Amino acid sequence: MSIIVLGTVAMDTVKTPYGRRRHMLGGSAVHFAMSARLFTKVNLVAIVGEDFPPRHINFLRKKGINLTSLIIGKGKTFKWEGEYRGDLSSALTLTTELGVLSTFKPAVSEEQKKIKNIFLANVDPDIQRHLLKHMPSPHLVGLDSMNYWINSKRKSLLRLLKEKVDIYVANEQEAKSLSGESNLIKAARCLRALGPAMVLIKKGEHGVVFFSDKFIFSLPAYPTENVIDPTGAGDTFAGAFMGYLSKVKKINEAGLKKAIIYGTIAASFNVESFGLNQTSRLTLADLENRLSKFRKCILL
Amino acid sequence: MSIIVLGTVAMDTVKTPYGRRRHMLGGSAVHFAMSARLFTKVNLVAIVGEDFPPRHINFLRKKGINLTSLIIGKGKTFKWEGEYRGDLSSALTLTTELGVLSTFKPAVSEEQKKIKNIFLANVDPDIQRHLLKHMPSPHLVGLDSMNYWINSKRKSLLRLLKEKVDIYVANEQEAKSLSGESNLIKAARCLRALGPAMVLIKKGEHGVVFFSDKFIFSLPAYPTENVIDPTGAGDTFAGAFMGYLSKVKKINEAGLKKAIIYGTIAASFNVESFGLNQTSRLTLADLENRLSKFRKCILL
Repeated sequence: MSIIVLGTVAMDTVKTPYGRRRHMLGGSAVHFAMSARLFTKVNLVAIVGEDFPPRHINFLRKKGINLTSLIIGKGKTFKWEGEYRGDLSSALTLTTELGVLSTFKPAVSEEQKKIKNIFLANVDPDIQRHLLKHMPSPHLVGLDSMNYWINSKRKSLLRLLKEKVDIYVANEQEAKSLSGESNLIKAARCLRALGPAMVLIKKGEHGVVFFSDKFIFSLPAYPTENVIDPTGAGDTFAGAFMGYLSKVKKINEAGLKKAIIYGTIAASFNVESFGLNQTSRLTLADLENRLSKFRKCILL
Repeated sequence: MSIIVLGTVAMDTVKTPYGRRRHMLGGSAVHFAMSARLFTKVNLVAIVGEDFPPRHINFLRKKGINLTSLIIGKGKTFKWEGEYRGDLSSALTLTTELGVLSTFKPAVSEEQKKIKNIFLANVDPDIQRHLLKHMPSPHLVGLDSMNYWINSKRKSLLRLLKEKVDIYVANEQEAKSLSGESNLIKAARCLRALGPAMVLIKKGEHGVVFFSDKFIFSLPAYPTENVIDPTGAGDTFAGAFMGYLSKVKKINEAGLKKAIIYGTIAASFNVESFGLNQTSRLTLADLENRLSKFRKCILL
């Protein structure tokens, strides 16, 4: 089954100890799509400005992404500029230009309304709720957010979590911030009490922990020493995770664990080069190859 | 086969969000012994002062620890006072009184010189080297240190690592500090080039990563929400890890992974109460019980 991803399409300028890249194609929905496409048909719901290079449109189309609901709005494309230092574990945001994102009202085609799998990638919770209102019969809804919205649009985010989110995907800081708990297990329990049956906490180089009423699953990251640019790693994780889940018949423990492993592997490719350099070339065979190496690092 | 642990026997005063405890029995060698005893006969090589309460001696003896080489020196017992805040991920040292530790020259009996398994727990590298000189035929040598010695006795520590250490056990900060690398995989490679064939990096709530020439093994921590006092968790880990290894016939990949899992489980008990409250009561059955729960959290 196909999937809808709502989120940002951005032009990213990134500086790391390994160099600087200007106006790369990026954004939460794009990074998500780049790994989700390995498993399922991806429908992108986003907005770009009039300055968005046509070559990016062609690139996304060539990657098999459905762009029916990619709006070209009046104004400029969302731009983010950030820098990573030291061990590249966290980004320092230098500038953010919202551009057309500030007027974004997502819309989907009648055909797309039938889609059952939805991922609400990082964007204003009001926009996330707006999309969800227009989806008559979602089967699996995943949500990502960020500290900025947790602080500035807390009520809207809480309403969204309560109404209809199956899986809340958060990083460690976001989980602690929204729950007010410093212990991750307590934080996850608190977040699940807010609505989502499942909570997945991303810890960057330390891996992920998944929580449901049935089980906890803790998985280290793939051990890579080539961390060049971690931008979009969380979205890449979510893309492979949700992409895999959207094609399984029944979501059970084994399927969720498999989805988390695929997410982990996809994210490890993302961090090893700038922007989409690696994930845009990735095949399912690449994922499987690295997965078999990863198994040796995590199993007895 | 039995094991020798060289390290500190301390009186710890610890404050955490859950309370304060004064002059608890602690120290690297004691925490190590408390979990290693579940697997093997532990010989403690350490020094205490004249103020050391006889009840602590009795307690250690009752736990089956061989105290032949526990010296009672002229002066006061080593005392450490620390505080944990927030998520209890790192200790703030308030005071350190070395006492008799500053004059410590470890000595072992003729009988103990035959012991093949040695763990050099955190103590001055000069003292660690002094002990090792008197051990004629070590089979497996593990070493722990801390940032204080990495900075103040770097040369002595490097000589020790080069001469005869099989397994270097470090926490994340120590590994980064000694290697000068911020990426843990690069750090581990650098540390192995300094001498030890195996490097084990402890990441607290994020688990551990083990490195040898044959494999990398990454294991999350046991997910516990009852973190009361993490003092000695690393030594408790090392005790179960080395204790298990000292009783296997041949050290291979499966044995090392099993040892790491036992270390992880033992450490999870340590953090759940002050001082030795839980680890002193621990049985191998307790470890096995929790291990079977842990398996569900880490395996497919």
